[in-house]
Amino acid sequence: MLITSLQNPSIKNIVKLAKSRERREQQLFVIEGARELSLALEGGYLVESVYVCREMFEKTKYPAVLDPIEHRHLFEITPEVFSKIAYRENSDGIVAIAKPRSHTLADIQLSKIPFVIVLEAVEKPGNLGAVLRTADAAAVDAVVVCDQLTDLYNPNVIRSSVGGIFTVQTAICSSDEAITWLNENNITSYAAELQAAEYYQEIDFRTPSAIVMGTEADGLTGFWLKHASRRIKIPMRGKIDSLNVSVSTAILTFEAMRQRGF
Amino acid sequence: MLITSLQNPSIKNIVKLAKSRERREQQLFVIEGARELSLALEGGYLVESVYVCREMFEKTKYPAVLDPIEHRHLFEITPEVFSKIAYRENSDGIVAIAKPRSHTLADIQLSKIPFVIVLEAVEKPGNLGAVLRTADAAAVDAVVVCDQLTDLYNPNVIRSSVGGIFTVQTAICSSDEAITWLNENNITSYAAELQAAEYYQEIDFRTPSAIVMGTEADGLTGFWLKHASRRIKIPMRGKIDSLNVSVSTAILTFEAMRQRGF
Repeated sequence: MLITSLQNPSIKNIVKLAKSRERREQQLFVIEGARELSLALEGGYLVESVYVCREMFEKTKYPAVLDPIEHRHLFEITPEVFSKIAYRENSDGIVAIAKPRSHTLADIQLSKIPFVIVLEAVEKPGNLGAVLRTADAAAVDAVVVCDQLTDLYNPNVIRSSVGGIFTVQTAICSSDEAITWLNENNITSYAAELQAAEYYQEIDFRTPSAIVMGTEADGLTGFWLKHASRRIKIPMRGKIDSLNVSVSTAILTFEAMRQRGF
Repeated sequence: MLITSLQNPSIKNIVKLAKSRERREQQLFVIEGARELSLALEGGYLVESVYVCREMFEKTKYPAVLDPIEHRHLFEITPEVFSKIAYRENSDGIVAIAKPRSHTLADIQLSKIPFVIVLEAVEKPGNLGAVLRTADAAAVDAVVVCDQLTDLYNPNVIRSSVGGIFTVQTAICSSDEAITWLNENNITSYAAELQAAEYYQEIDFRTPSAIVMGTEADGLTGFWLKHASRRIKIPMRGKIDSLNVSVSTAILTFEAMRQRGF
């Protein structure tokens, strides 16, 4: 079926789903990009419908993404319609509608010696997405988002995670629930902050570990500084007193993986 | 002097300087934020004029930034005028106009055992800024930008560098010039790519070293794969085949600093 009208109800609804409230009420979200869609399918997400602009899809690096899509769920759209529902540059002509999953701590399957990333109150979708992308690359056990300020299915989270949101086990909970879960699982929690006594490179990360990262503006709250097992810092040798949270998360995570022999 | 009119020629010119062409022609650029301005002043940048919105400046964490500014270079502006020239959220009421510096390889002062970050054709201002922020934190010798696609004084570079652009030695040149300079200075160059034979964590970075990072979309060009001393990679254990360039730069840079004992 070819959709040519910007007034098509499905098209108008995709535009609506840019809003967090609509995503919550409809229990639907938007995936843009063939790579992202293929990771969502691989991750077992339920994809309701896929919209393809053939002119743009020709250049995709992931042509096989459409193979598992049933014909009745597939809609062709014109470049004009696509440009109304796409928000990325250099898009490869794919937009899909999918159902969110639940993200509870109880669902998380831990490896024998887990490594977990805990984010407190992360605000910028781009930062959350970047952490998920790094979490995928490092194959961490899970990302736990505490006291959530950003909707996991925000288009900018999906985009900046490059699909990592679909490949990484992710839980949403309160900080209270997170520390209880970490303790129950005998995972040592390392709160990252500027004033900490211990340098990260002196920590032995070869035991079950979680790093706990605060917001960029204010760092961790007193809750985590009090309840985390230990407090660690990254040496800052310049004139600026902080790192981007996705960068500091990557430095700590890859040091842990290096110690573990990857 | 208080400026209340949006038609004031200085105010209109600040808006113009958002464009790369205007910055180049006028040899001026815009600094927003008290922290950024204080780092620029500390870094010896020539600041021509400073515009302050007192209502917003009250909450700044850097009130001393105005102390060295001569009265004749300081202009008060209204919140309305400020909102016309500001592009950041949560701004602290400071916008300044400054002169660019030259960024040549010849100007770079190297330490005894230098560590240099080379970026080939970095396109996104946010990525360039994030690398400069990391470069500041790690106190690298220099960032060398080859075959430049992004203007160093793009507002998004300044913002995402959090002022790192003013604290890190930065050179702009061709890839040819960069490899010649590295070789002349006996600096081993490590081209980062996905197919490389050597893992970064097996490299000894305690000798003069440069990491060479490509664009996110396409990686390094054949030039660097051919001319760099060695090729290295970061283990990728997930389903996504790449990391954000600012993240991979940080992982390599902090591993080098860890080996060197910071």
